[in-house]
Amino acid sequence: MPTAMNHPLQGLLVLEFCQYLSGPSASLRLADLGARVIKIENPKGGDGCRRLAIKNLWVDDNSLLFHTINRNKESFTANLKSPEDVAVVHQLIQKADVLIHNFRPGVMEKIGLDYAAAQQLNPRLVYAEISGYGTEGPWKDKPGQDLLLQAMSGLAHTTGNADDPPVPFGLAIADILCGAQLVQGVLAALIRRHKTGTGARIELSMLESLLDFQFELLTTYYASGQLPQRSALSNGHTLLGAPYGLHATADGYLAVAMVPLQKLAEVLESEALQAFSQEEAFRRRDDIKRTLAAHLKQRPSAFWMEKFRAADLWAVEVLDWQQLAEHAGFLALDMVQTLQAAGRDIRTTRCPIRFNGHTLTSDRPAPALGGDRDRILQELNTPPN
Amino acid sequence: MPTAMNHPLQGLLVLEFCQYLSGPSASLRLADLGARVIKIENPKGGDGCRRLAIKNLWVDDNSLLFHTINRNKESFTANLKSPEDVAVVHQLIQKADVLIHNFRPGVMEKIGLDYAAAQQLNPRLVYAEISGYGTEGPWKDKPGQDLLLQAMSGLAHTTGNADDPPVPFGLAIADILCGAQLVQGVLAALIRRHKTGTGARIELSMLESLLDFQFELLTTYYASGQLPQRSALSNGHTLLGAPYGLHATADGYLAVAMVPLQKLAEVLESEALQAFSQEEAFRRRDDIKRTLAAHLKQRPSAFWMEKFRAADLWAVEVLDWQQLAEHAGFLALDMVQTLQAAGRDIRTTRCPIRFNGHTLTSDRPAPALGGDRDRILQELNTPPN
Repeated sequence: MPTAMNHPLQGLLVLEFCQYLSGPSASLRLADLGARVIKIENPKGGDGCRRLAIKNLWVDDNSLLFHTINRNKESFTANLKSPEDVAVVHQLIQKADVLIHNFRPGVMEKIGLDYAAAQQLNPRLVYAEISGYGTEGPWKDKPGQDLLLQAMSGLAHTTGNADDPPVPFGLAIADILCGAQLVQGVLAALIRRHKTGTGARIELSMLESLLDFQFELLTTYYASGQLPQRSALSNGHTLLGAPYGLHATADGYLAVAMVPLQKLAEVLESEALQAFSQEEAFRRRDDIKRTLAAHLKQRPSAFWMEKFRAADLWAVEVLDWQQLAEHAGFLALDMVQTLQAAGRDIRTTRCPIRFNGHTLTSDRPAPALGGDRDRILQELNTPPN
Repeated sequence: MPTAMNHPLQGLLVLEFCQYLSGPSASLRLADLGARVIKIENPKGGDGCRRLAIKNLWVDDNSLLFHTINRNKESFTANLKSPEDVAVVHQLIQKADVLIHNFRPGVMEKIGLDYAAAQQLNPRLVYAEISGYGTEGPWKDKPGQDLLLQAMSGLAHTTGNADDPPVPFGLAIADILCGAQLVQGVLAALIRRHKTGTGARIELSMLESLLDFQFELLTTYYASGQLPQRSALSNGHTLLGAPYGLHATADGYLAVAMVPLQKLAEVLESEALQAFSQEEAFRRRDDIKRTLAAHLKQRPSAFWMEKFRAADLWAVEVLDWQQLAEHAGFLALDMVQTLQAAGRDIRTTRCPIRFNGHTLTSDRPAPALGGDRDRILQELNTPPN
């Protein structure tokens, strides 16, 4: 094994029984880190995400979205009601290091691929599962969908201003956090396997992931007995005082994080802000933010940023994707990679982890449904040399 | 080593040279999974988070916030300008499996604890670092603070409605995602170490973490050349059509995710909604959401939820933390653990990962500044048996 090996999970085999985002994002990360990932898909359509197109953007038979989440994987089609196919899946489980699924509770039991069965086939297997709300309790059969989880976990009350209705995050935060934590659990279990020789069962739910994400809020809620309150304007974080938030200027928006109020008043030359003391930063945050807003509105962002920068205070301009994507600061990160699929280039982001100074990239596109079935069958029938 | 070992990282030693949230959240997860984590802190105050109180909530000399993020760790104070203390830190590095820091680029170089130096001391060490914007390029010296990162990464344009200003997520998303990904990189490097015998360097930046989080949006932006647009009302995800979003009823709010429009019209008995076809779901999402809003406003949430449930459609009521914390569905998760600190109980969330059917909890509170220094010095001076 070469010590220069820069894809740390090289040599590991992961079976993915997953659809959409949470589970597939976990195995995407494992693939980026060097594992071989085989999607086990039903022959009738496979992962539903293949047909979930956004803005009608397609690459081939599959949506751009599917390609984005499933690059660098293989696809093996198996009819889990056919004994022949189940026998092959059992063979794959015997060879695998990791199995990931995100079916609703009970489905893997029904098809005979639950933890107990898989462990019988391969005691070294790390068996990892994602549910929406856990496998017990009154919510276990609810649909594990991101927006619904945001609504039920209290998260929608963190964002927007006090008079707004609840505001959801505009991205699939539950899927992504849960997928990321599943990877943590899987890798920890593989480390343990080196000592114990045995696999393990890892369970996550999207709800638990969102509760963990809100750990500061929930701990504060239990200690204070009070629900977090969004500020009346420019809310940035329910637990933080002024000036924390995004503020309009004459021609754009600035983010201003933790800045001592007296320093802020002095640097921005605002007499009105001088009236507030630091100990009022949380209690009177709405008044302070209103005063700040009136002041910042009078001049363009560049005028204020010069003052913030000169004083080394925590403020930046708010960018959109175009401004971001064209900026030298973004280009220096080398964050975009290009996949080749169906004769087209797909530009997408790479794995954010750098390993020994190298980025982890791959130009392999997502697999066609069952595109690797024949080769995988052949491998199974070929004795190892 | 017992095979029943349920804390998979037992036996690993992690040194944390970190402040605030991103790095400390990474080592909190490693501690939850069983690693021994020692915070290396300067004797004059230590981690700045000790004095960062929210709502003036304190436990002892340290804020509740600090306790929440640093439970289950030890603290070793070291003056990194004193040769004696540096010599002890070198001894600790020689014993450690993992070193994590989240200083600005250049700081660890200045104190002689950069990757090259640490690797000299211990070639098996996994050296993991978090920066704000990477270690190269024009943004490298900017402050790596969560709200600023949200503003610069485009993220603030995903949330809120079309006519709103940019809206930040109300939680420290960059810190948390970056910390979670650092754990992934660290564990992958430890797995590789079993094969190669050598450690590795893991680098993450909070900006790269937020870009990865937006991978669907950036890929769509590159393919379409168009900036994502928030819907005029009830925005849930810039890339998804109606009815995806949170909607007001006569007495509350409902989250409605992907539901076919004809089915929605039928179940809610809305003639007005029947006028829209499924292929208009994205293009005419504002008209559809307006029509849905007018309809849902007429009756209370319970009335509509009965219909949604009967048809097994993806909708739930929006809960706040109080409703959540009292619900049997939440209680079934057993998500709350209690720490004992300074004679007080701190109720906080536990690690979201279940391992072999067990939750991973610990009642050990955060350490006092330098509280473990004498014992650790003694350990170093005691020859291993």
